[in-house]
Amino acid sequence: MTKTKQRGLTPQHEDFSAWYNEVVYKADLADLSPVRGSIIVKPYGYAIWENIQRHLDAMFKATGHENLYFPLLIPTSFFEREADHVEGFSPELAVVTHAGGKALEEPLAIRPTSETIIGEAYSKWIQSYRDLPLLYNQWCNVLRWELRTRPFLRTTEFLWQEGHTAHATAEEAMAETRQMLEIYAEFAERYGALPVFRGEKTPGERFAGAQNTYTIEAMMRDGKALQAGTSHYMGDNFARAFNITFNDVNNQQAFVHTTSWGLSWRFIGALIMTHGDDKGLILPPPLAPHQVVVVPIYRADDDAARAAVLAEVGKLHAALKDAGVRVKVDDRQGMSPGWKFNEWEQKGVPLRLELGPKDLEAGAALLADRLSGEKRPVKLANLAQTLPDELERFQAALFERARDFRDAHIREVHTLEEFREGVEEGFVYATHCGDADSERWLQEHTKATARCVPFDGPSAEGSTCVHTGKPSGYPRKVIFGKAY
Amino acid sequence: MTKTKQRGLTPQHEDFSAWYNEVVYKADLADLSPVRGSIIVKPYGYAIWENIQRHLDAMFKATGHENLYFPLLIPTSFFEREADHVEGFSPELAVVTHAGGKALEEPLAIRPTSETIIGEAYSKWIQSYRDLPLLYNQWCNVLRWELRTRPFLRTTEFLWQEGHTAHATAEEAMAETRQMLEIYAEFAERYGALPVFRGEKTPGERFAGAQNTYTIEAMMRDGKALQAGTSHYMGDNFARAFNITFNDVNNQQAFVHTTSWGLSWRFIGALIMTHGDDKGLILPPPLAPHQVVVVPIYRADDDAARAAVLAEVGKLHAALKDAGVRVKVDDRQGMSPGWKFNEWEQKGVPLRLELGPKDLEAGAALLADRLSGEKRPVKLANLAQTLPDELERFQAALFERARDFRDAHIREVHTLEEFREGVEEGFVYATHCGDADSERWLQEHTKATARCVPFDGPSAEGSTCVHTGKPSGYPRKVIFGKAY
Repeated sequence: MTKTKQRGLTPQHEDFSAWYNEVVYKADLADLSPVRGSIIVKPYGYAIWENIQRHLDAMFKATGHENLYFPLLIPTSFFEREADHVEGFSPELAVVTHAGGKALEEPLAIRPTSETIIGEAYSKWIQSYRDLPLLYNQWCNVLRWELRTRPFLRTTEFLWQEGHTAHATAEEAMAETRQMLEIYAEFAERYGALPVFRGEKTPGERFAGAQNTYTIEAMMRDGKALQAGTSHYMGDNFARAFNITFNDVNNQQAFVHTTSWGLSWRFIGALIMTHGDDKGLILPPPLAPHQVVVVPIYRADDDAARAAVLAEVGKLHAALKDAGVRVKVDDRQGMSPGWKFNEWEQKGVPLRLELGPKDLEAGAALLADRLSGEKRPVKLANLAQTLPDELERFQAALFERARDFRDAHIREVHTLEEFREGVEEGFVYATHCGDADSERWLQEHTKATARCVPFDGPSAEGSTCVHTGKPSGYPRKVIFGKAY
Repeated sequence: MTKTKQRGLTPQHEDFSAWYNEVVYKADLADLSPVRGSIIVKPYGYAIWENIQRHLDAMFKATGHENLYFPLLIPTSFFEREADHVEGFSPELAVVTHAGGKALEEPLAIRPTSETIIGEAYSKWIQSYRDLPLLYNQWCNVLRWELRTRPFLRTTEFLWQEGHTAHATAEEAMAETRQMLEIYAEFAERYGALPVFRGEKTPGERFAGAQNTYTIEAMMRDGKALQAGTSHYMGDNFARAFNITFNDVNNQQAFVHTTSWGLSWRFIGALIMTHGDDKGLILPPPLAPHQVVVVPIYRADDDAARAAVLAEVGKLHAALKDAGVRVKVDDRQGMSPGWKFNEWEQKGVPLRLELGPKDLEAGAALLADRLSGEKRPVKLANLAQTLPDELERFQAALFERARDFRDAHIREVHTLEEFREGVEEGFVYATHCGDADSERWLQEHTKATARCVPFDGPSAEGSTCVHTGKPSGYPRKVIFGKAY
């Protein structure tokens, strides 16, 4: 690695957006690419994605889902078959018109999402109720030609997973939709230490072609919302568009009911903006590439001390690895310990162990906590036993801090004035009539959008819309906020 | 699953190519897609790919490589920078000319391989010898517009991994190139039970832009060759094309030396055609989605027997899973045991356990071996201990059978007549002068190509070219064969 210049980051309160970009590039998560709007995800960023994949994939498989792979290119005519879907995605398509040196007879779109090509296949694969349910998922790249892009949050190409299931009944499909949302929520909270609101999107915020869209919404440290995963109930929309029918138990032909659900590398953006501070990233241990970094300390001219420290560090490394800890030893030469501390703090490694000749004598190391900033001595002898517990404590504290921040930045509002003030600082719970025009007016005048109608939260009973004064359109108050 | 009609496959000796296609579709590995030349990889096929990825990725990481991700789209101008590379890949590019509803200023190609876009990034990332080596890999999709396609073997889009490394010296880059070839060879033999020849490609068969290409070549059961993985030494070709320079230890500017190496889902095709027989697939246990299938046997009208058998099967399932065996219990109703046996034989599951009321009484099960076709009773009591050994024996026998077949179908030839005869049945070792024109002549007149100059094999010393009579161009006899 080149010894790049270390400078501080723009403080979050000064320019959150500048802070975000600086963290992404300085922590070596990603780099710009020569193609507008797409990024190169560097090894440190990609390792986070691999951890996300591993945990999420295990959760999918534990609930009976299997992975498969559909083609990247989709005939553009497929998009025309579902009216809302084509309206939603046509403007963002990238289209292959030439291949193998010739013009194609029919242009092929790079998938922005795969409902259409999967719908076409399901219509062939499903004949009988015995073929149902189909519970499939794919990990892949997709492309949406966005005009304003930001690393991880909005890139023309991104990596994600998209689950696509087909069911005999509406009830089963709805249960699947809700189950997958709950898996996303559990994943976000348990592995990402991200507290999320679970809820349903308002009609104006639904996925193009869905009958209901459910979402998990997280709050970033600038008070803005980030949609971290969505699960869609399609009803029989795509079944009708692609003629996906089956013979039911009574030998009657019926349309299947389908779902789709996706989580992308946006999730990395959510981790950055939920947990990071002015020093840089703070990563949750279950998703961190390195959970612990060990920095050996010795004077450059003291070979004996160096050998003794490195020998102990080697033993520690092996013991921690055996204990299932992802540990990185930073034994690079020509860099001061302070420089290394800085670098790993910026990169958000949860725990750091410092080990020098004096520590060795005391049979201890210094343990530095990236979240609290505290340092304290820990016994070397049983570190392999205690460190996994330290990581769990770290994860719990990280989650608590994010939840406390979020809870301090959401409030119930009763007037438009309060609404305006509230969304400047975080989220609001507001009664809303459900009119699409009113939702648009609020967005235009306050920049806030309806994030979701939460499953839990204040009841809307007896209250009236903060904007129109009409009765509530939903059983609960709607969460509004400015969003990424 | 729909109870699809079970019919036999076309025998291999009758029409190997028809047999191959039937196996792919009937064993549910893949399906045709609406886009010419691309396939849908179904869950059973994708699970093989996931196993390939898991083992290979662990081998890459154990040798210090990290994963990252580069964009799918590459400006077409990038390809122009390396003369051989553009000549090799231009005819196969699929090109995006429109995106977001507008014509693009510069067309963007879907990556056929990523040397160019990675070279561009490396020129920014590498400044000093301290930045070297860069040992990176990506798992991704690529697209090459092929005219004649076959599932897994040659598809317009395919999944693969491509490693790209940069080094301070030619020696280091060459050592990396050879190391990665050896990793492919080890992977193929140990996990895929595929015996392979390791060797160097002749100049005419090199990767476009490489100075040397190394290959592992496997023999299919029709005697044809399949290139199962390649590792390329680029020298400083791409470094010069993309200006990838560094300051060396003496502070002199120098070009780096690069390598690239790839293995794709073609490997699944190699598994099918090396191990399969007239009954269908035979999968090597380390890569098989299910290593063992358990078929409970009972009379439909005997509820007590059914309950007893299923209870025992449940215990067995848990015990085998705990022992790390990938086990599938086929308790589907409405299908006869014989029908199930057939299906899992076609799908190539290595071992089958049959368990009925009589077996239960005897404390045993019947173990059927997909390779030998033999059945014998095994004690239920310690099956969790013995089955992993059975799987190892199976893997060893599978490898031996493939090696014996291969060794019986390769011979040294000394005349053009013998050459012609030899390549009708398998591979030949033939002295070759190394002239490109002669290689082309041989291909035109015998359909055989130079597969590699093997690292081990008969010396060419003192012999002359089977075609031109000139002195040998290589230290060893060249392996020729017809190829996929």
